[in-house]
This record gives sequence, structure tokens and C-alpha cells, in this order.
Amino acid sequence: MIERISILGTGLLGTSVGLALRDAGFRGSITGWNRGAEQGQTALKMGAVDSLVADGIEAARASQVTVLAVPIYATLDWMEKLAPVFGPEQLVTDLGSTKRVISETAARLYNTPESAAFLPGHPMAGKERGGAALGDANLFRGAVWLFTDGQTPLRSPRGVQLVNDWRELVTAMGAKTLDLDAARHDDLVAWVSHLPQFTATALSALLEEEVGDAPELKDVGGRALREMTRLGASPYSMWRDIALTNTEAVERALLALEQRLAQLRENLRTPELRSEFERANKFRQDP
Amino acid sequence: MIERISILGTGLLGTSVGLALRDAGFRGSITGWNRGAEQGQTALKMGAVDSLVADGIEAARASQVTVLAVPIYATLDWMEKLAPVFGPEQLVTDLGSTKRVISETAARLYNTPESAAFLPGHPMAGKERGGAALGDANLFRGAVWLFTDGQTPLRSPRGVQLVNDWRELVTAMGAKTLDLDAARHDDLVAWVSHLPQFTATALSALLEEEVGDAPELKDVGGRALREMTRLGASPYSMWRDIALTNTEAVERALLALEQRLAQLRENLRTPELRSEFERANKFRQDP
Repeated sequence: MIERISILGTGLLGTSVGLALRDAGFRGSITGWNRGAEQGQTALKMGAVDSLVADGIEAARASQVTVLAVPIYATLDWMEKLAPVFGPEQLVTDLGSTKRVISETAARLYNTPESAAFLPGHPMAGKERGGAALGDANLFRGAVWLFTDGQTPLRSPRGVQLVNDWRELVTAMGAKTLDLDAARHDDLVAWVSHLPQFTATALSALLEEEVGDAPELKDVGGRALREMTRLGASPYSMWRDIALTNTEAVERALLALEQRLAQLRENLRTPELRSEFERANKFRQDP
Repeated sequence: MIERISILGTGLLGTSVGLALRDAGFRGSITGWNRGAEQGQTALKMGAVDSLVADGIEAARASQVTVLAVPIYATLDWMEKLAPVFGPEQLVTDLGSTKRVISETAARLYNTPESAAFLPGHPMAGKERGGAALGDANLFRGAVWLFTDGQTPLRSPRGVQLVNDWRELVTAMGAKTLDLDAARHDDLVAWVSHLPQFTATALSALLEEEVGDAPELKDVGGRALREMTRLGASPYSMWRDIALTNTEAVERALLALEQRLAQLRENLRTPELRSEFERANKFRQDP
């Protein structure tokens, strides 16, 4: 039974995990740490954590499960810092959006009989804006929570148990778990998550330059515009580490879309346009 | 007072106009015509029209206001066919998504003291799928209904009156009217409507080829994916005439997005990515 959890990083995701754990009936302690004091205080007031500490290492040392809810490079830093502190009775898990680098680091530093267990995780849930105040106990309800755990034959027996318990808590938070190979994960999210985001960013930035000051814009733009640019509100801080840790896959996807748009542009007056619409229709067909 | 309206084309938009007119308290007759019998019958059963006729010209001849709710080239055909039939006591209006060609045709054939009035219109409302069965009395509620009427000094006095009365009915249907120059309209919608659509089509078609058969797709794809590809369900038949009557503006917008995506791709590891996100954030900022 897990009784002591620490959450390092109480932004949108960390705060939502705390709230969702409480909603799922978790009655143990949830200790929070955040780099900036304000987000931590917000998470505390919302009941996502029941105490705050100034030293993340101390919080993690006293916990059975440590949830790293920080950007990817900060996650890698914590993994390095915490590995020598932890023992085989402990589990670390993360919420990062790319998994190859984190899974490689986990294989190097964790999951031996003497070290803590590390379970690389990625809940497919979020909002286009961050921050503790947007934390939501229902954020993971109906969402998929991916794990890229791979082969970990040397994990300590207690680590195996904690991984199973944490997976049960994730299910109790309303998410559906799914296991993927880490490299496959990064390739797939490049297409279905990173490409849509960077497309929305490029489209929004382009429209800001072309029609951002058009007085009729607010009136003329309809649902299609709002929807296709909603993700344009996503902050750079959420996406920088994704761009840096999945660069090649994202480059491939972006280049493919550029070529696709060029092909469509060259075929606005030809029957090929019909074929392209039919392929798009197929993607959106109900199964 | 308008008492006799005919709607030529009872697909999604034509049916919605009929339903919205009834919802707004219009008590006169609404005669429907549709090229295929099935959509007409659906509109009749839904109460969007109170009678159906096999001959669109007869329906139009007997009406004070004729609403052309068909694709753009079909609208142009009807404009040619109806011009000699109509007199100065009648109004024709349309719902087409591009307005330059239709406004030019209106200036050539309508709006003289002896001819019917023509009011080019474009409600910024729709769904990603068409058809009478999706007709919705609230489709125009809160939407903007654009008019590109331009200078029509020779319009008959009765025509002027009918235009005013129709504008009032549009407001009663819950829409907000806005007047634009036709060329400006087509440029603006190329950016805020046509570019988002063609982007969603290209993205959906690309994803169909790249990951359409990935078994994990349904699980991994989240809200971002659903939203950025929803318009991928739009049928070619809705967009063919738009591509053909606003080609140059759409080509410009697509080329600009291709260049924008290439620039982003080349800057995934540089500080320029931050600037692009900031420009995108600005577009989505609340005013």
C-alpha cells in the first residue's frame, strides 16, 4: 500500500495529480515541492498537496512514490540528483511528454536490485495553458496514461510491487493505462501530438502577422479558426524540451506536412484535391 | 413585410435557414426545392419548408425572397437562369463562401431599376458535415452573417425595402450582420477560414497515411489531435467551388504556411522557436 507520495513540481499536471489522487480516495500524505513559491501555495490551498517543503530531495527521501511533474530536462536533472539518495523500497515516476531520453536515463540509473524503481509515464491530458490554478481532479478521467517501462528484469521486488500499486492509482484517477516501447512512443506522439501543436503555433503566428490587426477579424473568424488556433496559446516553456528531445521525429513530421500542403496548393484546380479530401475523410471516419 | 420565401437547396444551410426563420417567428410561406428528392423530403419533415416543388424557377417566380443555398457554381447558374424571370419586386440572396465572383455577377445581372435585387451574403456558420438532417434552427445564433453588397445606387425602391427586411430577418435568426467589400471578404476568409480548412485536410490525409492503421492511435490521440483534424471530415463537395473561386488567395495563404512550418522546423533547437510561440500566443490573447 502506498502511503507517502511526493510531487515535485506543482504546475497544472502536478496539481491535477494531487487532486485526482484525493478524488480517487487516496488517504496517505502528499508532500509538494515547487521551484517557485506561488504555484506551491496555490496547490496547497487547493488541497492538491497537504504540505510544502523547500527541499525537494528531503521530500523525495521520505516518500514511497515520487512523482516528477516538471519539464523534461528538469526531470532528467532530478533523476540524476535523486538516484544516489533513493533505495530499493522507493518508486520514482514522471509525466514527461517524450520518453526515449527519460527511459534511457532510467535504465542507466534505476531499476537494479539496489536502486529505486523508475516508471516512465505520460498522461495524454493537459490544457493549452499551465499553472496550478488550472489544476483539475478530472483531468485524467477518460484519458490514456502511457507507460514506456520496457524490460526491467532486475527491479527490486518492492519496486515491482510499488509499480503495480501506482498503476492501480492511475486507473483509480480515471485514466486508462497503455504500455508502449519508448522509441515507438516518441515517433507516434511526434505525429499525433507534436505535429498538431507546432502546426497550430505556426498557423497562429502567421495569422497574427497577416490579419492580427484586421478590425473584422473577431467577427469573421468562426469555430474553425478558434479550434485550429486554440493550441497557439500554449507557452514555449511547455514545448521547448519536447522540441529538444524529439527533434528528428518532429522534423520529419513537419517536413511531411510542408510537402503535403504544397501538393494540395498545386492541386486546388485538379481532381487530386478530391482524393486528398477523401483521405482526410477516412482519417476522421468512425471505426 | 416579407411573406413568401423560397429556398433553393435544402442541405445543411438551406434547411437551417428555414428552421431558423420559423424559430424567429416568420409566419409566411417557405417553399423548398432541392436537386435530390431525399434532402427535400427531410427538410419538409423537419418543418424547414412547408412545401416542395420540382421546378426551382416556378418556386422563385412566386416568391418575394429567394435564398440560394447551393454551392457557388450552382449559385452562379441560378443567378443567370433567374435574372430574366424576376422583376424589381423581388430579392435574391445567397449563402456562398466566396463573394467576389458572385458579387460581380450580381452587379452584371441584378440591382437595376427593372431587375430584381441581389444581396450577396455569407453566414459564418456551418458544420464539418452537410445534409438536411443536420439542419439546426440555432446554427446562426451568435454567428456573423456577412454581406458584400457594395454600391447599388440603381436598386429598385422595393428592392431596397426587401434588402432591409431580409437583414432584419437575419438578425432575428440570431446572427450579427457585418458589411465587407467582396474582394476584402475573399482575402480575409482565405486566411481565417479556407487556410484552416485546407490545413486540417492536409494534416488529416497525412496522418491517415502515416499512422491511420496504428493500433494505438485511438488511445494515444488526445484532444489536440481530435480538434486539429475535426475539419478533415469536411467533404470535397463543400470545398471544391471555394478552391476554384478563391484560388490565388488560398495559394498565397498555403505557401505562407508552408514557409512558416519550414522556418519553425529549422529552428526547433534555436531561440527563434520562443519568438514564434510568443507570436502565436499573441494571436490567442484575449483582447
